[in-house]
Formats: sequence, structure tokens, C-alpha cells
Amino acid sequence: MKDEFGGENMDFKDYFPIWDKLNEKQRENLLRVTKFRKVKAGTLLHDGGPSCLGLILVKTGQLRAYILSDEGREVTVSRFFERDICMFSVSCAMPDMQFDIMIETEKDTECWILPACMYKNLMDESLAVANYTSSLISRHLSELMWLMKQIMWDRFDKRLAKFLLEESILEEKRELKITHEKIANHMGSAREVVTRMLKYFQDDGMVRLTRGSIEILSEEKLNQIIGE
Amino acid sequence: MKDEFGGENMDFKDYFPIWDKLNEKQRENLLRVTKFRKVKAGTLLHDGGPSCLGLILVKTGQLRAYILSDEGREVTVSRFFERDICMFSVSCAMPDMQFDIMIETEKDTECWILPACMYKNLMDESLAVANYTSSLISRHLSELMWLMKQIMWDRFDKRLAKFLLEESILEEKRELKITHEKIANHMGSAREVVTRMLKYFQDDGMVRLTRGSIEILSEEKLNQIIGE
Repeated sequence: MKDEFGGENMDFKDYFPIWDKLNEKQRENLLRVTKFRKVKAGTLLHDGGPSCLGLILVKTGQLRAYILSDEGREVTVSRFFERDICMFSVSCAMPDMQFDIMIETEKDTECWILPACMYKNLMDESLAVANYTSSLISRHLSELMWLMKQIMWDRFDKRLAKFLLEESILEEKRELKITHEKIANHMGSAREVVTRMLKYFQDDGMVRLTRGSIEILSEEKLNQIIGE
Repeated sequence: MKDEFGGENMDFKDYFPIWDKLNEKQRENLLRVTKFRKVKAGTLLHDGGPSCLGLILVKTGQLRAYILSDEGREVTVSRFFERDICMFSVSCAMPDMQFDIMIETEKDTECWILPACMYKNLMDESLAVANYTSSLISRHLSELMWLMKQIMWDRFDKRLAKFLLEESILEEKRELKITHEKIANHMGSAREVVTRMLKYFQDDGMVRLTRGSIEILSEEKLNQIIGE
């Protein structure tokens, strides 16, 4: 039988990792308050302010979490794909999570949103939820630690080569429709720095630059840079 | 009555934030396996490898957690003082905490160490411990997010001015006994970069440099840099 969300909450049971560990009442509550949303690519889901969206569980699509400098420069902290859960937008249920982070859709996305207060109640009564939460935050912490090492110590050419190859895998294309500005926003860098390095890559036969796109000509050479 | 640790485990009850939320059996277990340690300044407590020290609760002293680049460069991620709890060294109880981090004493330190497996058991049976763990990891995450913004976007002179003022408050001295190398290790920078900036600070009358020490001459001017 389809529910009011057109069956999406039936799927929810398959996507929510600790569904089996909830009791009947918790399951009912969860289904009752969880919202299923279809969001167009390029939508800001969470703007980092004191407002609190809730926990996001991705069904399809792609999200990006990023932080902003005072001058408006960005750096991508994390990306979320199918079955990923984003805890960054649940700070009002987690008073010790004190940072502003933005979350936007990079592709058309379907996701469930578990309201923060509801999730807080679950954490307060379910050991499984509490421990699952720890493990999710630990994952966020590990990712951030990795990213910090990259930013601190990895050469910019290596980071850019990695970024291009990853994008190519994500998009399943060798020709990436992405501006230099957007790449700079992912990497916490400036557009000019990205453009300069891309031109160097082009001179070396690794990529071909055209207006609004970057075509990867040699994965091998890009991988060589990463391995240097 | 003093216990085998000379009374330190009596103090433990005051220092462990969720003691009141444990049951009698959990308290007994905790007192039985928790180790009290006195550690000289400059000791590496945890070397970031797969070995797992456990959760550290500081009674007195000062700890520093830092990450290492492949080339051996350091950056301080966090510092721990009286009553602080460090979760970084409990990764074998938290399979999603996947990063290598070093923890050393910066001053003579007294601390309790709760073995990781024991802590894991507590998390698995106590809702209070599970939720407290989430909040601790969230705190670590928030600190790291803050640090990343600093490293990405704050000017080096501002970061150095902040570091000197913070050290001066921590040490309760205007004359800091610290090498340029050590400062570089805290800040994830190179010694030459620190030396160059300190010389600029000296020319501007903010500090006086002597062999092995840095004397702060003008908190006001340092604060001006930070506020710029």
C-alpha cells in the first residue's frame, strides 16, 4: 500500500541503516514526521545559520557541504551520494556542533529529512541511534582530518589533478562542464590560481580547455602527478 | 579511604562528567580498569598508529594533539587542559574514526586513561555514555572546522599574533620560552616562515627576540593585527 508520500516512506525503511533497531513506536513516529523531498540541482538546502534543517538521508542525487570565509570564499568539506547521511544540518539537536556550514544540491536530488527535534528524541531514548550518531560524526571528523592534511600539505597541482579525475568518475564523462570559479570554490582557492594550473595542464597535454568545459586528454598523466 | 591509586580514583568521580549517570556496576568496572598516570612533559602518549590508548581525562597539565605530514611536518589540531577529555586516542572503540593523530604532553600531566574496549562496552550499554560520546566528537569536529577556516583563509600574521597571545596567557608570562621550530609545528608552517614574520613583529616593536625566547612587548599591537 502506498502512503501519503507515494511509497517513498516504504523505501525509507530500506535506506535508514538502523531501522531494524527501532521499536514499533519509534518507527511510526519516524514515518510520520520524516519528509520526502525532491530538490532541483543548485538549491541551497541549509544556509549554515541557526536554523536547523534536520538529518538528511540521500535517496538519489548529490549534495555538497561547504564552508565560507568572511570574504565569501568557499571550500567543499564533504559530498553526499545515495544512501549517505548528512549530520551537519542537525546542529540544534547537537549543541556541541558549533559551526556554520552550507549544504546544496549538486544534482537533482531526492532525500528524506528527519526533523532535528525528532532525531534528538530518538537519540535520547535509543542506544542504537545514539551510537549510530557517534559513528556518523566520527566519519565526518575523519573526512575533515583527511581534507585538512590535503589542504595543509598537498601540492596544489596534485589536488587539482585528483579533483578532475574524481569529477570525471562522478560525471562518467571525460569532458567536464565546470567553470574555473566552481573548481576554486570546491578547493578553497582563487579562480586565477585554478586557471593558471589548468593552463599548465593543457600545455602538458593533460587537458583541453574550451569555454565552460575541461576535457581530460590523459588520465595517465594526471595520475602521474598525483603519484609524484 | 585511599584506594590503590592513592585516592586519585576518588577524584575521578568528580572529574568524569557523567559519573552520576552510571549505575553501580558500571562505576565499579570503571574504577577497576581506569589507570591514573603521571607523565613528564614532552612524552608521546599516543603515536597515531593502530594501537589504541583509550580515552584520556586530564586532571592537571596540558596535552597537544597533532597530525603529521608524510614529510614530518606537524600541525596542532587541539589542546587539552584540566577536566578536558580527549577522544582522539580511542579509535579502536570507534571504527569510523579513521585518522592518525599524535598526542603528547606539553607540561607535566596527570591523567586518567579509560581503556578503549572498556569504554566501548560502556557505550554499548549506557545511553548517557553514548550521547556524551557524540557530544565530545561533535566538539572535536567543531574545533577542527574552526581550525580549517583559520588555516585556509586567515592571514599568517594574524594567526601568529593569536598564537603568541594565547601562549602568553597559557604560560602566564610575557616571555615565551619556545623555539621558532616549535611554533612552526603548532601552526603547520615552516620554521623560516615563522622566523621571517617574528622579525617583522620585532621591527614593529611588538616582540623582542632573544636566543630561545620571545618577549611580548605590546599586546596592544598584536591585538591590532588580529583585528585588522
